Amino acid sequence: MFDLILVRYGEVALKGRFTRKRFEDKLIRNIDYALRLEGIRFSLGRERGRVFVYTKSIEKGIDVLRKIFGIVSISPATEVLADMDAMKERALEMMRIRGRDINSFAIRVSRTGSHDFTSQDVAIEVGEKVKKDLGLQVHLEEPDLELHIEVRGKRAFLFFEKIKGPGGLPMGTQGRVASIIRNELDLLALWYMLKRGCSARIVSFIPREKLDGFLRKWYAGIEVEVVDELDRCMDGAMAIVTGERMENLDLDMERRFDLPVLRPLIHLPDEEVERKMEEIVV
Amino acid sequence: MFDLILVRYGEVALKGRFTRKRFEDKLIRNIDYALRLEGIRFSLGRERGRVFVYTKSIEKGIDVLRKIFGIVSISPATEVLADMDAMKERALEMMRIRGRDINSFAIRVSRTGSHDFTSQDVAIEVGEKVKKDLGLQVHLEEPDLELHIEVRGKRAFLFFEKIKGPGGLPMGTQGRVASIIRNELDLLALWYMLKRGCSARIVSFIPREKLDGFLRKWYAGIEVEVVDELDRCMDGAMAIVTGERMENLDLDMERRFDLPVLRPLIHLPDEEVERKMEEIVV
Repeated sequence: MFDLILVRYGEVALKGRFTRKRFEDKLIRNIDYALRLEGIRFSLGRERGRVFVYTKSIEKGIDVLRKIFGIVSISPATEVLADMDAMKERALEMMRIRGRDINSFAIRVSRTGSHDFTSQDVAIEVGEKVKKDLGLQVHLEEPDLELHIEVRGKRAFLFFEKIKGPGGLPMGTQGRVASIIRNELDLLALWYMLKRGCSARIVSFIPREKLDGFLRKWYAGIEVEVVDELDRCMDGAMAIVTGERMENLDLDMERRFDLPVLRPLIHLPDEEVERKMEEIVV
Repeated sequence: MFDLILVRYGEVALKGRFTRKRFEDKLIRNIDYALRLEGIRFSLGRERGRVFVYTKSIEKGIDVLRKIFGIVSISPATEVLADMDAMKERALEMMRIRGRDINSFAIRVSRTGSHDFTSQDVAIEVGEKVKKDLGLQVHLEEPDLELHIEVRGKRAFLFFEKIKGPGGLPMGTQGRVASIIRNELDLLALWYMLKRGCSARIVSFIPREKLDGFLRKWYAGIEVEVVDELDRCMDGAMAIVTGERMENLDLDMERRFDLPVLRPLIHLPDEEVERKMEEIVV
């Protein structure tokens, strides 16, 4: 039923035009890398505030995109011309499949661009068509199913759900950090900084398969380089990242390496560290 | 109905006997300070894993204790001898008042020490008494109301609810940090470190009433000293704390002050910073 995945990313952080462009380019590069790594065939489209992933592997694509930093939400969707009859017809097809075991529905419309109809016109006309042809009830407050129609210029995207992404900033949009991986806390700390847009060069002292599992799970290979030497790891880094907690603070590190040390876990409650660890570290 | 507040604190972090003692002493000192500051009359008791705040100002006391770092939960409670008849009688009194508009209840019992009854004996006997005298139904899975009986040696504590505290470690159990307050982000960063047990010496550049509001709200006066000079603020501090985010990182600070810099906000999502700000900063 779906032929693309609609990708939404955080716009709040994107003040200037230049920043936005750089952010989008990196996001697209990261998406491209991750999808290729999973052997998914796809093509990409982009538009202000949206990336479109056209693919036949919708389920697999969702699994990948929900782990890409910077993505706020995704929707498996289908695309038609922004024409009233086309939208009606496609909505009907979709509701015929997904609306089998429900009683009530609602059409939610958003629109950008200029058209000879309003959002409300679309909602009413499509709603009436579905109601009449499928015998379903319109229930605007608490429908069993919502069909979203996002009209953008000449095209309209139809979808049922918004799946949450990890948010944050695309890896590689901020500075590079040096990361010494001695344990899982260090991996978690690295994850937090990747999520804030950093890239990293790391030296690892944990089993290779654990590290690879982590890098693969978050498609971090594109922005995380593994090196052998501490010196190479520090070279050109803006700061060191470690998973130190209040109990095992090593405040001598700054001097030893002559670099600032970022300690994202320092103030987190034990429960949160444990919970995140299960979610994040393979 | 209540004559004391039962205070529970985090025990996980308290490995050794010495640490526990130091932690408890500090917690009690902080509780004492906060309650006095609010003009509440009280007396304190302590026992392994618990602090007892005896007071007539139960509501006000709860408002204070729920903002004291290190406290995991609190319960307005009443105390009787750990004697079956005494417990039955007190439970009945309490249920007579609180159980007016309910249909079902459950008695939850925990017990430490040696007694000639088990937890289950207490639950059954007290439950039957309440059931018979008040005509309420016992419903163990989904009761309308739960009455807890905590038997500890010669005493038993009866209460209905557990109210969450802020958790963390008592202020003053960890090292002292230097804090330069230029804006609300810096205040929030300070809060996170106080919650991890630090004390602080600060230099403030924000309006005095805003700072005082913050210090008062978190009863931080006891562990936060306000000074005029940057040098005095740094003196003897293990690290500097700032509210820097990824977008406004000042990685030169370490060198400028020759001290490590802790940046607890660096990796937090914008939404979380905003949410916390509303909750924490006055």
